[in-house]
Amino acid sequence: MTTKPPSGTRDFLPADIRRREHVVGVVRRVYEQYGYEPLETPAFENIETLLGKYGEEGNKLIFKILRRGEHEASGHADLALRYDLTVPLARVVAQYQNELPKFFKRYQIQPVWRADRPARGRFREFYQCDIDAIGSTSPMVEVELLSAVSDVLETLGFHDFRVLLNHRRVLAGLLQTSGIPGHQHETALVALDKLDKIGESGVTSELATRGVQEFAASRLVETLKKILASGPADQASATNRSRLGTLGTIFASTPYEAAAQELDEIVQMIASTPAANRVFVEPFLARGLSYYTGAIMEIAVPDLAGSLGGGGRYDNLIGMFLGRDVPACGFSLGLERIIVVMTERGMFPGVVANGAADVMISLWSADSRADALTLAGELRRGGLRVDVYPEADKLGKQFKYASSRGFGYVTVVGDDERRAGTVTIKDMTTGHQDSVARALAADHIRQRMTNAREDAR
Amino acid sequence: MTTKPPSGTRDFLPADIRRREHVVGVVRRVYEQYGYEPLETPAFENIETLLGKYGEEGNKLIFKILRRGEHEASGHADLALRYDLTVPLARVVAQYQNELPKFFKRYQIQPVWRADRPARGRFREFYQCDIDAIGSTSPMVEVELLSAVSDVLETLGFHDFRVLLNHRRVLAGLLQTSGIPGHQHETALVALDKLDKIGESGVTSELATRGVQEFAASRLVETLKKILASGPADQASATNRSRLGTLGTIFASTPYEAAAQELDEIVQMIASTPAANRVFVEPFLARGLSYYTGAIMEIAVPDLAGSLGGGGRYDNLIGMFLGRDVPACGFSLGLERIIVVMTERGMFPGVVANGAADVMISLWSADSRADALTLAGELRRGGLRVDVYPEADKLGKQFKYASSRGFGYVTVVGDDERRAGTVTIKDMTTGHQDSVARALAADHIRQRMTNAREDAR
Repeated sequence: MTTKPPSGTRDFLPADIRRREHVVGVVRRVYEQYGYEPLETPAFENIETLLGKYGEEGNKLIFKILRRGEHEASGHADLALRYDLTVPLARVVAQYQNELPKFFKRYQIQPVWRADRPARGRFREFYQCDIDAIGSTSPMVEVELLSAVSDVLETLGFHDFRVLLNHRRVLAGLLQTSGIPGHQHETALVALDKLDKIGESGVTSELATRGVQEFAASRLVETLKKILASGPADQASATNRSRLGTLGTIFASTPYEAAAQELDEIVQMIASTPAANRVFVEPFLARGLSYYTGAIMEIAVPDLAGSLGGGGRYDNLIGMFLGRDVPACGFSLGLERIIVVMTERGMFPGVVANGAADVMISLWSADSRADALTLAGELRRGGLRVDVYPEADKLGKQFKYASSRGFGYVTVVGDDERRAGTVTIKDMTTGHQDSVARALAADHIRQRMTNAREDAR
Repeated sequence: MTTKPPSGTRDFLPADIRRREHVVGVVRRVYEQYGYEPLETPAFENIETLLGKYGEEGNKLIFKILRRGEHEASGHADLALRYDLTVPLARVVAQYQNELPKFFKRYQIQPVWRADRPARGRFREFYQCDIDAIGSTSPMVEVELLSAVSDVLETLGFHDFRVLLNHRRVLAGLLQTSGIPGHQHETALVALDKLDKIGESGVTSELATRGVQEFAASRLVETLKKILASGPADQASATNRSRLGTLGTIFASTPYEAAAQELDEIVQMIASTPAANRVFVEPFLARGLSYYTGAIMEIAVPDLAGSLGGGGRYDNLIGMFLGRDVPACGFSLGLERIIVVMTERGMFPGVVANGAADVMISLWSADSRADALTLAGELRRGGLRVDVYPEADKLGKQFKYASSRGFGYVTVVGDDERRAGTVTIKDMTTGHQDSVARALAADHIRQRMTNAREDAR
């Protein structure tokens, strides 16, 4: 029997958890500052809730749960593991419509499961950190979302990320005004997505292979070139002004003007937020999920092929559960990718590497066990994290164990100390030993910890 | 399509999460003070890891996951949802034996899933908060576990709980010395478990029905009476002294003496910990799980039929994964039951009921959106949780909305304020309005919040 976790999943040992909790703590704190409230949903949903929401490919990647008891033999599944946090939110909004506020802003940090082929950085169980704002069509919603996400990344120590911004109807407009009919949009986007790899001429021939008419393909590539050439690509405001100008010209007097106008409003308001100078209009950004209806966005960093997260407006999804449409917009940060980049860049502060306890109580003899427990209680009430060595081993062995665990201090209460009402405190970093009165032991250790932290600065 | 969560599961809206986070925060903080380290394992395990660990009944209650892709049609399951946190821990200890410390103490707070028939307080998805100490047979392990658990409950505000303590071999000894052979122990315990409902004579006849010989049944009931009569049941130390004395007499010169002696050691050491006066020796406490080998324990409160949690020593389980036995002992607190009792008793402090934000920025006009975002950023940097009203509605409507959400303050920046560089701050509790300089707005609100908190005392 194997003792490895199932394929594509991971066990998180203490040091892993400390890193994860550092990131989740920042995410949560910042999202609370923006007025988002916490929500959690069950790990599994009724299978009908999930099927048909993620496209053909998504359906295949859903983990399905066998019916129980007498139905088990039928091989039927009635439940399925959560595939993202957006569809459960849409169900929740429909179910609790009378209890939730008119503008419901929630964050949700939970694992999701996808039966993808496991690969480097791609897991079958991974955490998403989502924020969504329900109930308003105002572009301020997009701006606040991007502001909050940027604030999270800045607080974590990211200073080189870009927010790529597009609009589903801008994308549709670019294809349509190039002469590509609606039913070819999906295949055309697949070709466009390869631009990085195969260049402009490659895209042109790929479009032809996919049945796009020659005049339309070349018009699309012309537009692409024009837009990519817009503005100095490292300055957000100049780039955006230039690209939005180009879109304005292309869409003049077409039904797509409003979508470009919406991007313009978002870009203007962003200047007043922590996302200022981060947001770049990218008129060919597509994003996979089919439920988006308006603005779409994605976070890019130079040293990661995929994105750190993405999101967009989806004004029709809740309607699938509620029977009437409710506007909604959200953003999802990928916890695992953030951790991968932060680890590679050495971005985790020292506090994350803390040992399991500040002090270890050594055990002198079986007779002194009750006294060791009493001392542990005194030090814990004094605000310290305290471990107790469980067996009356040789003292040298106990010191060695404390060292290996990274415990900062070890207490020794031998017969002499017990008679004198003192405790010997050994600093495991310096080797220095002090004998202090029992009542002062916690203060003494806390003081030494403070001094050591200040010396380290 | 239903929008309810699946049978036996729950959605947690913001107010629910705040209560849960309060409890989990205390659990985590106290366990860290005792030197336990965090661990997390995947939601599902390979199915062989779980099958056969929880008895016949347990196997039926495990949620099984269908194989994916081409294998889906076969109806076979290869994965299963976590059923408890102990078996995954045993797997982890076997897998990472060279990375983990000699004495590995971990806490784990994660959901588990059981396909039980849902009932009041019984869910199919529920959280366990486990601590376990691996690697030592010392009874100090049991003492530290019970001390930590008692500390958690005291910190949460429980002052009337009891820790029931027994030992698997004491239980076996009581049955054996009454003349009940090993193969009848299980059925005899089922009868004993009904004592509360059917009384002593009921238990005697139930034992007969289950095939226990008459002389053995009556000896067992005699012993039961003798032990239950021991000591004033409301004083732990007197009760324990008397019950341990009785056990000593019954077990004199039998192989069960050592087990009673171990309980005695635990009880003596407990006196030096926060669990002092909480622990009651209950020689007929059984606990369901089959993997326990030594001390077993359970937490009882007067107003709950079931227990708040339980645990015990299991020195053979890790051996099932590792091939050699490693001693282990653990305790599991049930988050849902703790929350049920705390809610019924009104034990959640006021802070849990906090609104989603401290301040709401009202929106004067579409033109002032950028300014509203700037002000929001200023107040957030000033340490406040800030929501922004997303649409330029009538001011009265915005105030009403802020009231309904429990936001403490609303800012208004109209044309006059903008020219003067001020902001009007309305206290939604008192209705009082102040006009203050923009740069002082965050300080002003924080000051008023502090004053209001002090007035409330």
